[in-house]
Amino acid sequence: MTCSVDIQAYLEQQRQKVDHFLTTVLPDGQNLHEPLYQSMRYSLLGGGKRVRPILTIATAESVGSLSIEDLLPFAAALECIHTYSLVHDDLPVMDNDDFRRGRLTNHKVFGESMAVLAGDALLTMAFELCSQPPSKTTIGLDRQVQVIYELAVGAGHDGMVGGQVLDIQSENKDIDLLTLQAIHNYKTGRLIRAAVRIGGILGGATTSQLDQLTKYAEDIGLAFQIADDVLNMTGTREELGKDAGTDAERGKKTYPAFYGIEGARTLGEQCINRAIQRLEDFDHRADPLRELAAFIISRKN
Amino acid sequence: MTCSVDIQAYLEQQRQKVDHFLTTVLPDGQNLHEPLYQSMRYSLLGGGKRVRPILTIATAESVGSLSIEDLLPFAAALECIHTYSLVHDDLPVMDNDDFRRGRLTNHKVFGESMAVLAGDALLTMAFELCSQPPSKTTIGLDRQVQVIYELAVGAGHDGMVGGQVLDIQSENKDIDLLTLQAIHNYKTGRLIRAAVRIGGILGGATTSQLDQLTKYAEDIGLAFQIADDVLNMTGTREELGKDAGTDAERGKKTYPAFYGIEGARTLGEQCINRAIQRLEDFDHRADPLRELAAFIISRKN
Repeated sequence: MTCSVDIQAYLEQQRQKVDHFLTTVLPDGQNLHEPLYQSMRYSLLGGGKRVRPILTIATAESVGSLSIEDLLPFAAALECIHTYSLVHDDLPVMDNDDFRRGRLTNHKVFGESMAVLAGDALLTMAFELCSQPPSKTTIGLDRQVQVIYELAVGAGHDGMVGGQVLDIQSENKDIDLLTLQAIHNYKTGRLIRAAVRIGGILGGATTSQLDQLTKYAEDIGLAFQIADDVLNMTGTREELGKDAGTDAERGKKTYPAFYGIEGARTLGEQCINRAIQRLEDFDHRADPLRELAAFIISRKN
Repeated sequence: MTCSVDIQAYLEQQRQKVDHFLTTVLPDGQNLHEPLYQSMRYSLLGGGKRVRPILTIATAESVGSLSIEDLLPFAAALECIHTYSLVHDDLPVMDNDDFRRGRLTNHKVFGESMAVLAGDALLTMAFELCSQPPSKTTIGLDRQVQVIYELAVGAGHDGMVGGQVLDIQSENKDIDLLTLQAIHNYKTGRLIRAAVRIGGILGGATTSQLDQLTKYAEDIGLAFQIADDVLNMTGTREELGKDAGTDAERGKKTYPAFYGIEGARTLGEQCINRAIQRLEDFDHRADPLRELAAFIISRKN
């Protein structure tokens, strides 16, 4: 199958839409809560590839014909969740990172207590964005409730947060490959899976389409993490926008530690090929999803 | 008006129902995420008066006739939000409290990183509980989405979290009465307001009923905070389950600091009388709400 999408142009276009929408979600200017909003905006609007919201939009558009205006609040919700997880993850009691996306981390600028609260507020705001009244959206109440459930499960105790706990508990331990897979399946995979499934639900995917999309998401989620591990070893601080080589320093086990860098790269490519196979019954509207899969392992940050 | 409800028996009965339901919301026994669940359970099931979930149930029952089974997930969601806020609030970077509800705080038992993540997971779980599929609830999708929106707004940037930020920013500052009121309106008031409004929405309150219930909630929210401030000054460590006199030690301004202890008590009583007045058009099914109002300022912890 040949793909007709210029993925760089597509990503840039979608990223701009998401970024613009994100600038509108918090009240502007003089407001009682302005100090909190500053901290939230700092992390939410501080760059980022917007992979998860773009996955939601691209998936919805692969099966349905909703307007971008209807999709953006849900796409933005995924970015709120992702951003909050980074803010909390960077805290001194967690990964203790000073840099993120090429800038100081939230707590380095606003202090630790504000970073905890800005994260809490971003997490909560994701659900505010998804539960707008019917007068403001044409999504339909049944899909809205389904989407909220997917988001909560993907982000919560049996999803991303569960993965963070597994990750913390395995630091400086000699974990096996199965444990590594479980960590990443939850920590990174579940939110990517939710992003895709939410897009599918919003777009009105059939049950079998949603099954295929879910498998696509699991494949690219794994590839995404493998690519992250490889980049952490091979990228520079300039490319990554954060310190490089930190996994090894912290004694974190990674895919290259099990497979070598080349072996990990091959594994990532296999995942991507499988992901694209999952979409064989989808028409040209799924081209952005196909290209996104390939982009995940070719990226430099 | 004479009230026919034995409030102590009512509270105990409802508390047991809420507590029992809360024991069922997390998977039991051998589970990959058991360490996280231990930390979540420790705080979620570690006592507490369950004021917010009981307000939700009592409000729903004041206007409608839903089964307790239908109400419990939403009532429990409010307790999840309240509990997460306590876990994060107790962190060393926040209030740095060692005791809560008569036991060590979450981070003293499980460590700070687990406490951050257990809080995140409890917050997220609140929305999982509210977004169960229609097959598991008879609430109705329209009410479900409304409830989720109320919860997100009440708990988030323009609600409880916003209030936490105001509180932190005013520590050791000579704040005026207006600022004190704003802090408490957001930090405590908005979630109590959400608990009551959610009950009203679930029970099918009319617009004018929901207006009256909202005012009732604002009155008892203020009374609740005044009573908390008074108890912090007059209660013992045994009564409170946490250190007493901590507000004064931290230089926190409180209602007794502005009005004196007796003046604050009088103000609290005025709020309660006004709250009960708000319900004058409600029938005997609102008796628990009337008694709850009175209970708020008579409590010892």
